[in-house]
Amino acid sequence: MAIVLGPNRYGKAESRVVRIQRDTPRHEIRDLNVSTALRGWFDAAHIEGDQSAVLPTDSQKQTVYAYAKQAAWDTTEEYALTLARHFVDDIEPVDTARVEIEEYAWERVTTADGAEHDHTWVRRGPEVRTVAVTVSGAGAAQRTWVVGGVKDLTILKSTGSEFRGFLQDPYTVLEPAADRVMATSLVAGWRFSTLEVDWDEAYASIRQALVATFANLHSLALQQTLYAMGRAVLEACPEVAEIRLSAPNKHHFAYDLARFGIENRGEIFHAADRPYGLIQATVMHDDAEDAGPAWESFTGLV
Amino acid sequence: MAIVLGPNRYGKAESRVVRIQRDTPRHEIRDLNVSTALRGWFDAAHIEGDQSAVLPTDSQKQTVYAYAKQAAWDTTEEYALTLARHFVDDIEPVDTARVEIEEYAWERVTTADGAEHDHTWVRRGPEVRTVAVTVSGAGAAQRTWVVGGVKDLTILKSTGSEFRGFLQDPYTVLEPAADRVMATSLVAGWRFSTLEVDWDEAYASIRQALVATFANLHSLALQQTLYAMGRAVLEACPEVAEIRLSAPNKHHFAYDLARFGIENRGEIFHAADRPYGLIQATVMHDDAEDAGPAWESFTGLV
Amino acid sequence: MAIVLGPNRYGKAESRVVRIQRDTPRHEIRDLNVSTALRGWFDAAHIEGDQSAVLPTDSQKQTVYAYAKQAAWDTTEEYALTLARHFVDDIEPVDTARVEIEEYAWERVTTADGAEHDHTWVRRGPEVRTVAVTVSGAGAAQRTWVVGGVKDLTILKSTGSEFRGFLQDPYTVLEPAADRVMATSLVAGWRFSTLEVDWDEAYASIRQALVATFANLHSLALQQTLYAMGRAVLEACPEVAEIRLSAPNKHHFAYDLARFGIENRGEIFHAADRPYGLIQATVMHDDAEDAGPAWESFTGLV
Amino acid sequence: MAIVLGPNRYGKAESRVVRIQRDTPRHEIRDLNVSTALRGWFDAAHIEGDQSAVLPTDSQKQTVYAYAKQAAWDTTEEYALTLARHFVDDIEPVDTARVEIEEYAWERVTTADGAEHDHTWVRRGPEVRTVAVTVSGAGAAQRTWVVGGVKDLTILKSTGSEFRGFLQDPYTVLEPAADRVMATSLVAGWRFSTLEVDWDEAYASIRQALVATFANLHSLALQQTLYAMGRAVLEACPEVAEIRLSAPNKHHFAYDLARFGIENRGEIFHAADRPYGLIQATVMHDDAEDAGPAWESFTGLV
Repeated sequence: MAIVLGPNRYGKAESRVVRIQRDTPRHEIRDLNVSTALRGWFDAAHIEGDQSAVLPTDSQKQTVYAYAKQAAWDTTEEYALTLARHFVDDIEPVDTARVEIEEYAWERVTTADGAEHDHTWVRRGPEVRTVAVTVSGAGAAQRTWVVGGVKDLTILKSTGSEFRGFLQDPYTVLEPAADRVMATSLVAGWRFSTLEVDWDEAYASIRQALVATFANLHSLALQQTLYAMGRAVLEACPEVAEIRLSAPNKHHFAYDLARFGIENRGEIFHAADRPYGLIQATVMHDDAEDAGPAWESFTGLV
Repeated sequence: MAIVLGPNRYGKAESRVVRIQRDTPRHEIRDLNVSTALRGWFDAAHIEGDQSAVLPTDSQKQTVYAYAKQAAWDTTEEYALTLARHFVDDIEPVDTARVEIEEYAWERVTTADGAEHDHTWVRRGPEVRTVAVTVSGAGAAQRTWVVGGVKDLTILKSTGSEFRGFLQDPYTVLEPAADRVMATSLVAGWRFSTLEVDWDEAYASIRQALVATFANLHSLALQQTLYAMGRAVLEACPEVAEIRLSAPNKHHFAYDLARFGIENRGEIFHAADRPYGLIQATVMHDDAEDAGPAWESFTGLV
Repeated sequence: MAIVLGPNRYGKAESRVVRIQRDTPRHEIRDLNVSTALRGWFDAAHIEGDQSAVLPTDSQKQTVYAYAKQAAWDTTEEYALTLARHFVDDIEPVDTARVEIEEYAWERVTTADGAEHDHTWVRRGPEVRTVAVTVSGAGAAQRTWVVGGVKDLTILKSTGSEFRGFLQDPYTVLEPAADRVMATSLVAGWRFSTLEVDWDEAYASIRQALVATFANLHSLALQQTLYAMGRAVLEACPEVAEIRLSAPNKHHFAYDLARFGIENRGEIFHAADRPYGLIQATVMHDDAEDAGPAWESFTGLV
Repeated sequence: MAIVLGPNRYGKAESRVVRIQRDTPRHEIRDLNVSTALRGWFDAAHIEGDQSAVLPTDSQKQTVYAYAKQAAWDTTEEYALTLARHFVDDIEPVDTARVEIEEYAWERVTTADGAEHDHTWVRRGPEVRTVAVTVSGAGAAQRTWVVGGVKDLTILKSTGSEFRGFLQDPYTVLEPAADRVMATSLVAGWRFSTLEVDWDEAYASIRQALVATFANLHSLALQQTLYAMGRAVLEACPEVAEIRLSAPNKHHFAYDLARFGIENRGEIFHAADRPYGLIQATVMHDDAEDAGPAWESFTGLV
């Protein structure tokens, strides 16, 4: 019964790259948190301490910054694809590269006359756009996976949501709710089945499908809402093969004011921290091919 | 040399109150994090453990939720004033009450046709609006202080900022910068000299003064920018007696790509976490009256 | 090309359960953060909004607290096993249950005479013990997986570590290091091949194997150290089939003081935040059976 | 009614300095988070953008690292004093310097035979030791303040605490508690009246006084416990003039299991996050001199 090395990878996590495009007076900003991970022929590094096949994580970091300038890229997905291909194609011992990126949104300041400022922005959040690219193998056999996503998309509806008719067991004391606040801080990832995608447009349409479905569906449960959100994304963006949604049920409890002689008709709530419900679901095309390593998160960021 | 009890206070921190106004199909939301602190005749509680003058922090919490409904309020400042006055006026041993509130912004979802949704919002951040109200004393001698504020207002300009001509000492190795990225995550508080204020309008005009000044001033240093921001606020909002600004200098270092044969003309930056510069300044009317306890933060939230 | 529901689960995350055993004057404390997740026949909840098979997450929370008292348990693993079996065995629509727990350590206060106090403790961290139990299926076919673990075990050695002889590419500017600080904040999980385990003793011996190996091995790279740590655990605890290690390389850079005429022989370091190296490796018995759902984390906590 | 510049200061926050003493095979580690702030003749920097009197925050950072090596220091207080004096004495425009430090504790690893390892440690928390030194003025008129402290000292007692006999108002629904869990995450600062102090010994004796008093006093309220803790510190360490304590009441609610037919005699608790009580008190010698700027925190870290 021998002890052996199993799956392994390594990289540089969370390089904070900011790119300013300043070719014209109206600057553009991209604000990224970039992580890279490599798999390959690194057994000797583990077993014997032999580093001769190991590209330092510092070199990966330098590459991340260098490619931010020298690669031609408009969208973060293009940048991630170029980086991942470089590691697989140009670094001999690397078999598979994964690039995970968080992108932070900035919004232009408007000045007194309502005009957008050329080179000043304020951060907009809390939602963060994510991308995870995996490239594996050489030449004609090379395969590529792109997973787009969003995290911390915090959304709330003050009516149009109920929860009742649920299973009862001896520990069930919850009262059915005919009209409640429903809120979540969504984390979602969607796997593309092709690289022929207008990435920014896809992101906008997917985000809109998520948000509008949450708003418009009269919800019988968060499960139902998530499934409908997933369907809406697949219908809005045919390049998506599969979407995974993870949604904390951010409980808003109607506060008991009756004991003080005050009527509370769904107006005053306590927003609780913990515990919270947590609902996770996948929605997919039934002929979606195997996802391979697409979902093997490196940093947990994406 | 006797040992004595010095200044003391107590309260309930971080009650998470959400108010939905639902009188019409178009709902309104206010999302607050409320803390209350009381000063008064509490020596016996400390010295002898006698609780007979101590209103429990749980009762303070109940009051926070009850007043969210029963007080008539449009703005968070009005709600805070009503709460603070209640504690001082109605609870015998209380001499001074302080109410600190963070307010989180929500933005209406737009549906497919571009219409705003009646009852669904997404959270907007990271910036948070703050208010701290202090009420002290009884009857005609009662005094009131209101400090408005903002925190985590993250703002960046990609040009229009330099830093040079600074003092040199033996540990000075910094190169002068003729054109740099300047970014901060502003925390500011402004003390009003009156209660006759349109609170929401004041907030909007102050925020605009801060943001526009940051954008428009060609900056020789963050100190100069902060001072100009403070002046602009006092000029835009005459009800403000004093503003305090605390601004981390979120360093963005131009990345050295020359060693890889790549020219980097202010395009690629590393956004550093720590250490960071930290600049703090007060701007005030020269005849501003004494601030009293206005700035004595209870939770550090505000 | 139909759209279908894929894998899904739901539960209550982060119930903060504290148990005090007070049968004798010397109390005992267990401080837990408990999450439960259920898989089963929940398609109708997603597709039709039919909740009749859905045990509310609130009921799961009630069960978590009730079982903390009524289940007989000494170790957190026993508690988790009892909870997970209850959901699978007693709740009809549930096929698979997963229980994830963080356990926080408390240390008894010592009083003036050096004696341990009976009922007062101080929290000890940052390291946190973790357990993840999965139970699936009914009757004789029921299967169970237990993954123990630790997170945020922060460890540093000030010598006995080098890094050189690594691969060079055009972006490699790192200098080889013959003697460096090596530090990490380890996250590790180990999968048991049996339930016949003295859980507390296993934890203690595994933690000691991790720590002692990190200390004693002269390290040529973090990869080598992780592999040796994994081997040491499998050798120290034969009930472990597989261990997964994730280790951020918390860089400590020797500060350049030479420019000030000060010699720095590995004495003064800057501890950097981001970016950081991240090394992940698995060490396993070569005949370890398939891990099934053992590693499918629900909350990311474990 | 002119607009003027009020109080201001600036500095470099959170330089992460790690010192290893390696003169013998048994190394010693000090792990610090250092912030420096300067006050002085900086009006022109704000008003005109003239930097000629401004020592860059980068230079302050270099000094922090340089002095970590070249200053002779055993305790963190000595290091902070040397740094602060340097800025006031050697940098012309500086009138007042403040140095704030967090110190993280490390504990030696023990190897198989129970021996302490020479150069490997694990981090020990969550509690953090703090120091804030302020030096102001020149020559014989120079004054110095030292504030020691601790933060996140998390302590819990499972009995020996009650809360009853409190004031009742219309919003009081809390039940009196004859026996409850009391827990806090203490933040405390203590101001020394002299510089003739054995700093490490003072810290140890103060921490012990805090912890032992919390444990041993039968508590009628957290206020009473805090006051007793403060008194105990002043009695244990005569060099302390004043102590300020801020203590969140980390509520542990006995969980209602009676509805499930389970008796809960103070055994199973829910540890709540928010809201929390917050109790702040000062205990001082009645002839303590004015504290000057001792408590004017720069970073909120200390």
